[in-house]
Parts: sequence; C-alpha cells; structure tokens
Amino acid sequence: MQTIKQYVEQNKERMLNELFDLLRFPSVSADPAFKADVLKTADYVAEKLRQAGADNVEVCPTAGYPIVYGEKLIDPAKPTVLVYGHYDVQPADPLDLWKTPPFEPTVRDGKIYARGACDDKGQFYMHVKAFELMMQTDTLPCNIKFMIEGEEEVGSANLSIFVKANKERLAADVVLISDTSMISMEHPSLETGLRGLAYLEVEVTGPNRDLHSGVYGGAVANPATILAKMIASLHDDNNKVNIPGFYDDVLELTDTERAELNAAPYDEQEYKKDLDVVELWGEKGYSTFERTGTRPTLEVNGIWGGYIGEGAKTVLPSKASAKISMRLVPNQSSEKITQLFTEHFNKIAPPYVKVKVTPHHGGEPVVTPTDSVAYRAAQKAITESFGKAPIPTRGGGSIPIVALFEAELGIKTVLMGFGLDSDALHSPNEKYDIFNYYKGIETIPLFHKYFAELSGE
Amino acid sequence: MQTIKQYVEQNKERMLNELFDLLRFPSVSADPAFKADVLKTADYVAEKLRQAGADNVEVCPTAGYPIVYGEKLIDPAKPTVLVYGHYDVQPADPLDLWKTPPFEPTVRDGKIYARGACDDKGQFYMHVKAFELMMQTDTLPCNIKFMIEGEEEVGSANLSIFVKANKERLAADVVLISDTSMISMEHPSLETGLRGLAYLEVEVTGPNRDLHSGVYGGAVANPATILAKMIASLHDDNNKVNIPGFYDDVLELTDTERAELNAAPYDEQEYKKDLDVVELWGEKGYSTFERTGTRPTLEVNGIWGGYIGEGAKTVLPSKASAKISMRLVPNQSSEKITQLFTEHFNKIAPPYVKVKVTPHHGGEPVVTPTDSVAYRAAQKAITESFGKAPIPTRGGGSIPIVALFEAELGIKTVLMGFGLDSDALHSPNEKYDIFNYYKGIETIPLFHKYFAELSGE
Repeated sequence: MQTIKQYVEQNKERMLNELFDLLRFPSVSADPAFKADVLKTADYVAEKLRQAGADNVEVCPTAGYPIVYGEKLIDPAKPTVLVYGHYDVQPADPLDLWKTPPFEPTVRDGKIYARGACDDKGQFYMHVKAFELMMQTDTLPCNIKFMIEGEEEVGSANLSIFVKANKERLAADVVLISDTSMISMEHPSLETGLRGLAYLEVEVTGPNRDLHSGVYGGAVANPATILAKMIASLHDDNNKVNIPGFYDDVLELTDTERAELNAAPYDEQEYKKDLDVVELWGEKGYSTFERTGTRPTLEVNGIWGGYIGEGAKTVLPSKASAKISMRLVPNQSSEKITQLFTEHFNKIAPPYVKVKVTPHHGGEPVVTPTDSVAYRAAQKAITESFGKAPIPTRGGGSIPIVALFEAELGIKTVLMGFGLDSDALHSPNEKYDIFNYYKGIETIPLFHKYFAELSGE
Repeated sequence: MQTIKQYVEQNKERMLNELFDLLRFPSVSADPAFKADVLKTADYVAEKLRQAGADNVEVCPTAGYPIVYGEKLIDPAKPTVLVYGHYDVQPADPLDLWKTPPFEPTVRDGKIYARGACDDKGQFYMHVKAFELMMQTDTLPCNIKFMIEGEEEVGSANLSIFVKANKERLAADVVLISDTSMISMEHPSLETGLRGLAYLEVEVTGPNRDLHSGVYGGAVANPATILAKMIASLHDDNNKVNIPGFYDDVLELTDTERAELNAAPYDEQEYKKDLDVVELWGEKGYSTFERTGTRPTLEVNGIWGGYIGEGAKTVLPSKASAKISMRLVPNQSSEKITQLFTEHFNKIAPPYVKVKVTPHHGGEPVVTPTDSVAYRAAQKAITESFGKAPIPTRGGGSIPIVALFEAELGIKTVLMGFGLDSDALHSPNEKYDIFNYYKGIETIPLFHKYFAELSGE
C-alpha cells in the first residue's frame, strides 16, 4: 500500500500540470468579458472531479455562474466532509505590473506565479488531488462532498440560494476550506476566526457638470475636496474608525486570547521590509496581529474623480467617488454596520453636495471553537504532517459564506489553508509555493483520517 | 461701401460653414493619438488666412505643434495689432455625456455645440473673418499680425521659444485675444485681469504593492486615506487655502475696485440653478465674483487610486494620486507658489508614506490698466456695437502667455472675448452662441478703428 508521500512523489508532475491547466483559464467573475472562460473552468473542474473518482458530478446552473458538485459516499455511518472552494479569480489588473502574464502560470524559485495560484485554485485543487490519492490508495475514511462555486470574488450571491435549495444533498458534519494562509511552513498555523465585510460605494456630486476650474474655482465646492474631507474624518487621531456605534458590538479578546495571538512569531523589521514601509500604522493600543485579526477596520479600496488621464486638465469635477469597505469582528453585524455607515456618511455630507451611498455584498465575522472535533482533527493532521502543532491565528480576510453554512446547514467550518502572506492575493504577481501545494495534498488525507477517528469517539 | 453689418449679413452662411469645418478637426493637443488632426488644423487655418488676404502666411514648425503666422502691413506709421489665438482644443472626455459628437458641430437653439466651439476656435476665427471683412470693405486701419498656436491647452511650451526668436516679426503695439467671456449679451463686459496658474501632480505611496485589505487592513496606512487627509488639510474652516505663505503676495482690491466688481449683475439663484447646487462655497468674507476673479484658489482637478473598475475589489492600494492646481492673483508668482506647495505637501506627509510632487506648466496672473489706449479702444468698440459700455470684470481663468507677451514683446494684451459662462468650456457639450459669433465679427473692426484713432492722439 502506497503511503501518502509515495503517491504524491509518483504523481507530482501530473498534479502540477493539471493545476497549471486550471490556472490558464482567466475565470474573472467580476468582468462579464470573461464569461465564456469562467464557464469553461467549471467544466474543467467537473471533469477533474470525475477523473478523481467522484460520483454524481454536476455543473449545477445558477442565476450566475454554476456551482460544481461531486461526491463519494462510502458509508452512511461515517462522518461527511463538505469541501468548499471557488474556481473564479480576482481581476488581474494592473496588468503592467505583472512580471509574467497572469494567466500563463510560470514557475520561479519554486513558486507558481499566476492569478488564482493561491486564491483559490491552488488551494482547492489540493483537495481534488488529496481525494484522488485517498481513492487510489483506498484510504478514504469519510464521505466526501465537493461544492466549488464561481462567484466568490463577487460576493457569492447565488450560493445561498443553492445551499438553501440543496440542504439534503449538502448535509455534512463539517465544511473544510483551504482559502487562508499559514504563518510559514516552519510555523504552521490554523485560522480560528475570520473578519466579516461591509462594502459600499459612495458618490459625491457638486455642480451638475464638470466646470472650468478658472471660471468657477472659488465659487463652488469641489466634490473631490469634499470627499477627501469626508474620508479624512472617518479615522480619528488614534486611527480608530470614527463612525458612531461602530465599536458597540465588538467582542474584546480575553488576556489569554491576546497572549496566545501575540505569541505567534512576528518579525516587525521583516514585515516592514517586505512592504517597503518605514512605519506601520493602525489603531493605537493594539499589536499588528490584533489589528489585522481581531479589530474592525475601514479601508478606501478605490477613489476617483475628475480628470485622471495624461497631462493636465483644469477641471472642477462634477463628481468624486470611492469604494470603501470595512472588516468586521465578532459580534458586529454586516447589515448593521452597512446601515451605520450609510447613515453617518449621509449625515456628515455638507450642504454643498449630494451624496449617494450604494451597499455591495457583505459577510459576517466568524470564530471556530478550538475544542471541536473538526478543529482537533485539523490540529492533529498538521502536527503529524509538519512535525509541530499549529499556532491558532485570527484571519484578517473574509469568507462570508462560512456564516452562511452555519446558518443554513448547521455546520462549522475548518479553515485549513496552506497559503502564505507573501502570496500577494488580489495583487499583481500572485503566487503559490509548489512546496505548499504538495504539503497540502499530503496533509488533507490526515484530516479526513483524524476526523473519522475523533468523530467515532 | 458696405457697412460691417451688411458684409456680415451677406456672408454669414459661409462664415459659419468655415467655422464648422474648423470645428470638425479633433485638434486635441493633450493626446498624441490626434497628432495628424492637429497638424491638418494648422494647415486649414493657414489656408483661411491666405484666403482672407494675409501675406507671408506660414505654418511655423516648433518642437511641438506649429504656430500659424500671417500678416497685413499697410503702413509703418500705423499701429500694429497682434492677434493671438489657439487652434488646439481640450480633450472631449467623458464622451458619453455629449448629446451630439464633440467633433460634429451641431446647432441647437441658435448655439453651436462642439469641442472648441468657444475655446478657442469660434473666438479666434471671428478675427480671421473680421480681417477678411476689413480687407473686402477696404477699411483696415492698422497693421495686423496673426499668431495662432496649437499647444495652449497643454501649456504653450514652445510658444515662448517662438516669441523670443521672432521679436522683430511679432513687434506690435497691442496683443488682441478673444478667449474669455462676457457677463451676457445684455451686459457686455471686458476682462481687466486674469488669474495665474500653478499645476502639480502628487503621488502618495504606502506599501510597495497593492495589498489584500483583509490580510493587511489595520496594519499599514492606506495611501488613499492619507492622501484624503492631506488634501482635506489644504483648506481651513474659512475655506482659505492652508499653505503657509500662500497669501503673502496677494494684492487686495481697493474699496472702489471691489464696489465696481460687485456692481456687475449677478443673480445668485440663477447661478446656483444653472449648476444645480443648493449652496455656493468659498473663501469667507468675499463675494462670488471676488472669489472667482480676485482671490487665489486651490482645486483638485483629478484624484485616483486603487481599484476603480466595475464591481468590488478589496484592495488596499499601493498608491493614490491627485492633480491639483491653484489659480493665482497679482502679485503672486507661479514659480514661488509651485515651490511653496511642493515644500508644504512634502512637509505634511506622515512617515507612513512616500510622497512625490511633480510640477506641470504654470502662468502668471495679469491685470490690464483701464486707462490704456488699447483698453479704451475696446471699450469704445463695445459701447458702439452693443449700445452700452462694457462692465470691467476680473477673469477666473488663466491665459499664461499674456504675461509672456508683456515680458518678451513689451506689450499689453486686450482681452475682448465674446463667450458666455454657459459655454461649458472644458466640459461636455461645449457651445458658442451664433449670435455671439457674428457680434464679435462686427465688433472687432471697431476695435481696430478706435485703436488707430486713439493711437494717433
């Protein structure tokens, strides 16, 4: 009987090439221009699931992009693991900053460079290969179900409809997701929480048309300046978010939890050097990891107004806009925060302008209990695979559907990701380490093994 | 002998069609994609000058776009009028806001809609037709020289070189320019001053790449927020520009000058209604016309950073930028203000970011004395043509080359424009009233007549 390592060793090249093929599809869900590519990606994923040994593989249509489903049910008495992932990717722009084309996976220094290499194709595809491995070595200990969607980067609007309509088909004991990162391969870690998200677009309008800034400059308010002043007011001098009621529902960590979190290895010089910044910034009184994992934040994701092309144009713009999002922590509610922001932003708008606030998709913050069977199974798997126990961490990013799964399917999620902070998610030159790819394929079967064992207790 | 009015009446259709042809050239100097069109426009202007009767017409090459020169020298004893204009136009974007194509001149309600209809083709071409009229009616009283350039919208970088190299050829007693507006056809006015200009581009850089706003939000400063805070600080609570030393050289108006300026008809309700704003904004303690004509201002002409495309992208941007310009009044110096701004902006940048300030072209403010021969000639011409004396006004816009002419040729400029504030310069749906076009053609010969007469005194 082949061991996990032997199987991976013998099949590593093919496993990598299949991932390269997957990465070549420009499955950008945010841009309708890529519609055909997104659909082809779904078909590819379905085909690979079939080849790995899944039954009832289906490309399930939705009002948007399809959800790929597949399963292997071995024994109703065994626990069931529901694997979630997404085959769509972030837009690749700005294109001119990529060293190699975003949809032509290129290996440099043992890393695969491509849009989606880590988020999420490299990560979810490890599960498909781990499944294949367990099937080929006849070591599949749990029932397994796959649900790979195509709209995560645009808010998974159709996922909740699918989940609600397929509760029986999706019934499981745990959701397993690889879409997060570890501190490093030397310091494996497990995400115990994720921040939530509220995302809005704001538009400030002054005069009803762009004006000549000589003829009108000084007579009317400039929406770009007004927007700047409004955005500037959203953080106070302690870098706290300056919206009344924003922090009301925030759960402070206990001293123990803070100590545990801050025990994770952290080299501030390296952190700053990697980003090429002289000084970090954030809410006073909290460490870097506390600020990114356990405290809510507000970021301007995009801002624009007036003439932004080549050269000079002396225009007093009619409008200025921004995309603003907030990361939330337990027990903040995405809906409540969206409403608070909307009311506040409308309230602070001076009478010289009209303001329009448009909410986008959001998501609730989550925390996974470390004493659960699922968490302990992941902990054991990582300990065996890496030779040391994983450090519990709080993730800064959001995976809104985790709250959805708990609400609709009644099950918790284990976030067992193998990415790294240096993977440059959402940025140019996104990458995924080949070492991590294979390590994940080796570790995932151990999760299934221990989940079955611990569930039996 | 035909009167001015008779000549215009008989040739009005042709004069209008020639202007339409001129407007059809997309002579956008700011965008290299239109290079061939800009050059064709110069040839057209030269041809029309020849047809109007000019001698020594030349399309003079420069390091950029050519300057079209032509002259009619009738008598060295007569004064010489140097007519300046520009055949290049502003970019037309945003294209989707134009009711009819910007380079297909369309008449609606007696107005010609096209990019450049007023700024500056409609206005400078009146001088070519007025010249033709004076030639055809044998009433040309002064020597006349034309200098029509192709880079005014991008800073006239090559004009100063041309002027310095052609001082003899361009020797004159006054420069005559139509590139400004009147209060209305019922209340004709003459510009007695223009604001200057300082234009800069600023770039704020935080981390060395776009970041995932979940993974890093709260850990590092967001350049868009920092830029917003820096821009917000540039105006204080009285809406004064908040740069140390900014107002040091500003010449306050005398009480008489303020009274004269504020005597111009002004309907605040109409002004607000035209722009669809509820409240005006500006430096406290000054009226609307004072704020746009006699006080310096600072405007954000463009701002951008992060993801500004369709939908949502949760990025913490690496950079945020803005185009910022300041309108100046006597005796502010464009070079000094550019330096003040640069030093100040670098100084207020917090340690979390790097700041880059890039100056663009600028221009000095000017004032034309109302007791000069040239001003009085224009005053008489307008009084005769309109039936009432023009109101002296202070223009908010900048024509930087006016200071150049004074410095290099030693001559003052008369700003006798026939535009209207509603012409939407630099905006979509720019227009020029047909009535104003013909009115200018009728008034300009009267300027030449009175300039000759008053010069003889």
